Amino acid sequence: MVFTSTTAADFDTIFSTLLERGKMDIEHVTAIVGGIIKEIRSEQNTALKRHIAKFDQWTPEKDEELKIDAEAMAQAYTLLEPELKSALHLAYDRIKAYHEKQLPKSWFDTESNGTILGQKVTPVDRAGLYIPGGKAAYPSSLLMNVIPAQVAGVEEIVVCTPTPENEPNALLLAACHLCGVTEVYKVGGASAIAAMAYGTETIPKVDVITGPGNIFVATAKKLVFGDVNIDMIAGPSEIGVLADASANANHIAIDLLSQAEHDEMASSILITPSAELAEQVNLEIEAWLQKLPREQIARKSIVERGAIIVARDMAEAVALMNEVAPEHLEVSTDNPFELLASIKHAGAIFLGHYTPEAIGDYVAGPNHTLPTGGTARFYSPLGVENFLKKSSVIAFSRAAINEIGEACALIAHTEGLTAHEQSVRVRMGSAE
Amino acid sequence: MVFTSTTAADFDTIFSTLLERGKMDIEHVTAIVGGIIKEIRSEQNTALKRHIAKFDQWTPEKDEELKIDAEAMAQAYTLLEPELKSALHLAYDRIKAYHEKQLPKSWFDTESNGTILGQKVTPVDRAGLYIPGGKAAYPSSLLMNVIPAQVAGVEEIVVCTPTPENEPNALLLAACHLCGVTEVYKVGGASAIAAMAYGTETIPKVDVITGPGNIFVATAKKLVFGDVNIDMIAGPSEIGVLADASANANHIAIDLLSQAEHDEMASSILITPSAELAEQVNLEIEAWLQKLPREQIARKSIVERGAIIVARDMAEAVALMNEVAPEHLEVSTDNPFELLASIKHAGAIFLGHYTPEAIGDYVAGPNHTLPTGGTARFYSPLGVENFLKKSSVIAFSRAAINEIGEACALIAHTEGLTAHEQSVRVRMGSAE
Repeated sequence: MVFTSTTAADFDTIFSTLLERGKMDIEHVTAIVGGIIKEIRSEQNTALKRHIAKFDQWTPEKDEELKIDAEAMAQAYTLLEPELKSALHLAYDRIKAYHEKQLPKSWFDTESNGTILGQKVTPVDRAGLYIPGGKAAYPSSLLMNVIPAQVAGVEEIVVCTPTPENEPNALLLAACHLCGVTEVYKVGGASAIAAMAYGTETIPKVDVITGPGNIFVATAKKLVFGDVNIDMIAGPSEIGVLADASANANHIAIDLLSQAEHDEMASSILITPSAELAEQVNLEIEAWLQKLPREQIARKSIVERGAIIVARDMAEAVALMNEVAPEHLEVSTDNPFELLASIKHAGAIFLGHYTPEAIGDYVAGPNHTLPTGGTARFYSPLGVENFLKKSSVIAFSRAAINEIGEACALIAHTEGLTAHEQSVRVRMGSAE
Repeated sequence: MVFTSTTAADFDTIFSTLLERGKMDIEHVTAIVGGIIKEIRSEQNTALKRHIAKFDQWTPEKDEELKIDAEAMAQAYTLLEPELKSALHLAYDRIKAYHEKQLPKSWFDTESNGTILGQKVTPVDRAGLYIPGGKAAYPSSLLMNVIPAQVAGVEEIVVCTPTPENEPNALLLAACHLCGVTEVYKVGGASAIAAMAYGTETIPKVDVITGPGNIFVATAKKLVFGDVNIDMIAGPSEIGVLADASANANHIAIDLLSQAEHDEMASSILITPSAELAEQVNLEIEAWLQKLPREQIARKSIVERGAIIVARDMAEAVALMNEVAPEHLEVSTDNPFELLASIKHAGAIFLGHYTPEAIGDYVAGPNHTLPTGGTARFYSPLGVENFLKKSSVIAFSRAAINEIGEACALIAHTEGLTAHEQSVRVRMGSAE
C-alpha cells in the first residue's frame, strides 16, 4: 500500500507508477490468441470442441450440445429464491429505464432551398456478448450487456460463456431467462470471441462483441476489432475516491475494499486533503480486511496496488484524480456537485456520502462495464450506442446543387478529382 | 467489371466475392508496423527523423524542424485563389453547422427519493489527426477531421502529415490556417500514428487518433487501439448505387467513376431493377472513361472491382445493398425517401437525382470519413462523438439507499462479493 502525500519528495515517481496501473501488456499472449483465432476460422465447430475439451474439461459430441437449452434456463429461473428474483427484476427494470434515456434519435434538418441533411440511427443486426463463466459467473454482467443491446433494438443477441465440466451456472441461466435471451453457447475464452467474430456452423457471425474477460478475451477482442466492432479493451477493476474530512472513514475503507476483493490486480486509490481521514481509512481497511471472506485477494490487491494520497487541497486532489482517470470515482464530500464540473475523466462518478460504488454495480441503472486503466480519458461506459451505428443522410434539391455545386466542383478540381467535379457539373443548370 | 443479374446461375458466387471486397488483410504488414511503433516508443524523435529520412527523403536536424511554421500556413492561405478560398470557407461553414447538430448534451434525471442519474459528456483532452500527404494531400480531409474535433471542444488538436522532400502541400497549409490549426507536424505513416499514440519529445501524446491513410497507417491504428481510441480501420473507397429506370444513366456512370478514380482498389457497384439502365450505364462508363485524366486508375478499378447487377425488383436490390453495406450509397429514384426505412447499412446515404456522392465529399456538411468494406454494419461516420466520451453520474440519497440497498446487497451477497454487500449495508438505516 502506498501511503504518501503530494508534498513528499518522491511523490512524482510514486504517482507515475500509479498512472501505469492496469496497463494491459497483451503482447505476450498475442501469438497464442492469434493461433486460436486462426483455428476457429478454419475449423469452426471442430476447433471449438477441441478447445472446450482442453479448457473446460468436457467433450461436446454433437453441435447441438454447444447451445444451452431454453428449458434449462426457464427452470433455473423458476428455482430462484423469491427475494433474489425480485432483486434481479428490480435491477433489470432500473438498468433498462436508465439505458432507454440514452437512446439517440435519427434526426434531420432542412434548408430553404429544399436540402435535407440528417443522420439515421440503426441498430446492428447481431450482437455477441461475452460473459465470463464458472465460479466467477456474474448474473449482473449478463444484465449489463444484454439490456443496452435490447434497448438499442438489436434483433439477434448471442451470448457465449465458458461452462467448465458442462455444468452451467444456475444463476446465469436464470438471468438469461429473466432477460429473455435464448441463444446462449457454452463456449469461452478467445475461441468464443473468434466464433462470434467470424461465425461457425452453430454460432452466428455478429457485428459487435461486448463484455468483460481475462487477458485472452481482451486480446482476442483487439485482434478481431475491425472485422467486428468491440466495446473496449478492459483490464482489472479500480476505484478512485475523492473525500474530505466530512467523509466516513469506515465507509471509504469498505468502498476501497469492494474493488480490492474483485481481483489481486485491482487498484484502490484514495486522494484526500484530510491527513486525518487518510490515517483513519488506513486503519479501517485493516479492520475490515479481517472480516472479509475474500481477505486474501483483497489484501494482496491493497498491499500491492492500493494507495492513499494526502493532497494540499481538494483542487489538487481533483487534478490528480483527472490524471488517474479511474474506472469508478467516488466523491465523498458534503456538496459533491460543486466538484462535478472539474471532473474530466472517470468511467462513472458516484456523488455523495450515500452512493457507494457497489450500488452502480447492480441496481442503480447505469452500466457497470466501464473503461479501466486510465482509458476513461477516451472510452465511455458500455451503453446503447455500442449497439447502434449511424448513416449520414443527404438529399440535395436541384436548387441546392445549383447554389453550391460550383464550390464543390472547384474544390474537386483543385484536388485533381475530375470525375468528382463532373458528377456535380452534369447536374448543374439542368433544364427543368 | 461484373455485369450480371440476380437470376444468373452463378450469382451467389459472384455476389459473395463482392462482399469480400476491400477486406483489409493487414497481417502481412503487422510485423513491420509493430517494429516501427517499438522504435518510436523507445527512441522517439530520433526514430522519427530516421524514418523521415528514409520515407520522405529529407533529414530534419533539429526537433523544431518537425513542426510546420504558423507563418507558412498563414502565407499559403493568403496566396489562395479568391474563389477557392470562398469555396473552402463555404465548406468549412457547412461542415461546422452540420456537426454542431450532432453535439450530444450531458443529461440527468431525478427520482422522487432524491436520486440523480445521468451522463456527463466531456471532450477528450487531445486529438491527433492523420492527414495523408504529398501529391494526395487533400484539404477536404483536413476540414473533415478538424471540424468535429473543434465542435466537440477538444482543447489541443495535433495534425501529422507526411511531407516528402520537406515541401509542404500549399493547399493543406492554407486549409490548416483556415481551420485555425497550429500544431502541424511533418511526420507520416505508421511513425506518425505511434508518435501521437505514445508521444515524443516534440509531439504530444493524444487520446484519440482519426484520419485516413494507407495500409501501414490503418495497421498502426489497429495496433495502438486500446492505448488511445481510434475512429475506425478504413480501406479503399467505394460506392453503391440503387437506381431505377427514372435515373439518368450518364449521371450514374460518372458517379460510379468518381469512386473509381480515387484508387485502383476502389469498388463501384450499381444494383438496379432496370436492365435497360444497366446497359446504358455500362456504355456511359466507357464514354466517360475516355475523358478522364485519371482514366488509368479509374479503368483498372472499374474493370477489376466494378459491378452492375440487375435485380428482380427494387426490394431485392435494397436487400442486396444492405448486404454490401457500402461506404457511400446513392438512391437514384424519383421518391428516394420511400426506401429510406429499408436501408439498414451504409456510411452515407445520398438521396435523389440531384445528390451526387461528390457533394458529400466537400461541401454538403456531413463527414466524408466513412466506414468501408462492409463495416458500415457496425461503424458510424466520423463525427463529434469520436472526440467525446461519457461518464455515468450517480447520486443516491439516504432515502434511496434505504429503498433499494437491500436488493443490491442481496445480489452482491449471491455473487460472493461481501465487501460490495457491506459497502451498501453500512449506509443503510443510518441515523438522521
